[in-house]
Amino acid sequence: MRASKLASLPTIKRLPSYLHVIENAAREGRTFISGTMIADELELEPIQVRKDLAITGIVGKPRIGFPVQNLIEAIYGFLHWDTCHRAVIVGAGSLATALMGYPEFPRRGLSIEAAFDTDPAKVGRVINGKPVYHLDKLAERVEKLSASMAILTVPSQSAQDVAEQAIMAGITAIWNFTNVKLKVPPQVIVQKEDLSSGYAVLSVKIRMLNGE
Amino acid sequence: MRASKLASLPTIKRLPSYLHVIENAAREGRTFISGTMIADELELEPIQVRKDLAITGIVGKPRIGFPVQNLIEAIYGFLHWDTCHRAVIVGAGSLATALMGYPEFPRRGLSIEAAFDTDPAKVGRVINGKPVYHLDKLAERVEKLSASMAILTVPSQSAQDVAEQAIMAGITAIWNFTNVKLKVPPQVIVQKEDLSSGYAVLSVKIRMLNGE
Repeated sequence: MRASKLASLPTIKRLPSYLHVIENAAREGRTFISGTMIADELELEPIQVRKDLAITGIVGKPRIGFPVQNLIEAIYGFLHWDTCHRAVIVGAGSLATALMGYPEFPRRGLSIEAAFDTDPAKVGRVINGKPVYHLDKLAERVEKLSASMAILTVPSQSAQDVAEQAIMAGITAIWNFTNVKLKVPPQVIVQKEDLSSGYAVLSVKIRMLNGE
Repeated sequence: MRASKLASLPTIKRLPSYLHVIENAAREGRTFISGTMIADELELEPIQVRKDLAITGIVGKPRIGFPVQNLIEAIYGFLHWDTCHRAVIVGAGSLATALMGYPEFPRRGLSIEAAFDTDPAKVGRVINGKPVYHLDKLAERVEKLSASMAILTVPSQSAQDVAEQAIMAGITAIWNFTNVKLKVPPQVIVQKEDLSSGYAVLSVKIRMLNGE
């Protein structure tokens, strides 16, 4: 699976939207789907779609397209979504609640097993069927749950401290929704999510629409 | 400001993280910041940072860097974040609550003025100081608030219907957090947000870390 090293970040980021279109095609009973069909649905260039999908190793047939089931399995395999990622979430606020209720994640192998907070009003509650523990229990619970991923939705000023606690508890991958650039040891993976990025794109599109 | 037409999407998406670093430098009292310093902070190549920042029109001085205040103003101007984007949010669940409480947005010109829902348990409530109205009131309120942007956090099956109601009410830009590809008239801008994209990148990084 060394092909992944050659995949660019934009390609990886587009794969979930391809998967969504291809899974819809599967639900409609289609057995093949063309790159052009996927491109039309997502308003991308067909050449882009074919180039991106090449990283899965699945080859389309001329005039027929890609075999839907094979393509779905290949994308799941490429993204490692065919195995379960057991995660905990730290900061049990509204964003955590939204992520814990996001219906796509369990289907994509992401299982958020528990939330953690220091707020006595939140500790002991249940969000989407999962318990909220005090942050003091992080190390104990991460071990019991065999969780390897932590999702951080804490206030920025707590982010570095919480990240360090998570790493000491054995977490090796952090999905960081705070706006802090975390300092982590080299063997720990961090993916920073920035809700302002999409807003930036939208803002520039608005400006261009207004002809400024 | 025609330079914006030449800016790539990845460049635009990186601007908020540059802004964050540069604003931190301003808070620390710095008057100049080098491209290398920004690159180090964000783990990017200095050439990438300088290329991206060139679209703002601000030129750095050799061995001194970019003037911090001018650069901040130029990024705000480029992103149109120096004007107020009045928005409404449809679907008053946990994701809406998270977005309405996101502290970056008001500083970036995004003002979410009201939320809408059909759930009687939510209508009439106040989230982060803003009212939740019944969806029936959308047209009336969008006009009163002079809102031009709608943020959709509704369940997928309602997305197209709600988008059409928003457009009929005068909305010209939609920030779409559902996984539905919306059909809209050409003069309406849609930016689709996909939380699975970041998770896809994280998953591939985990797979590569594990040497698979």
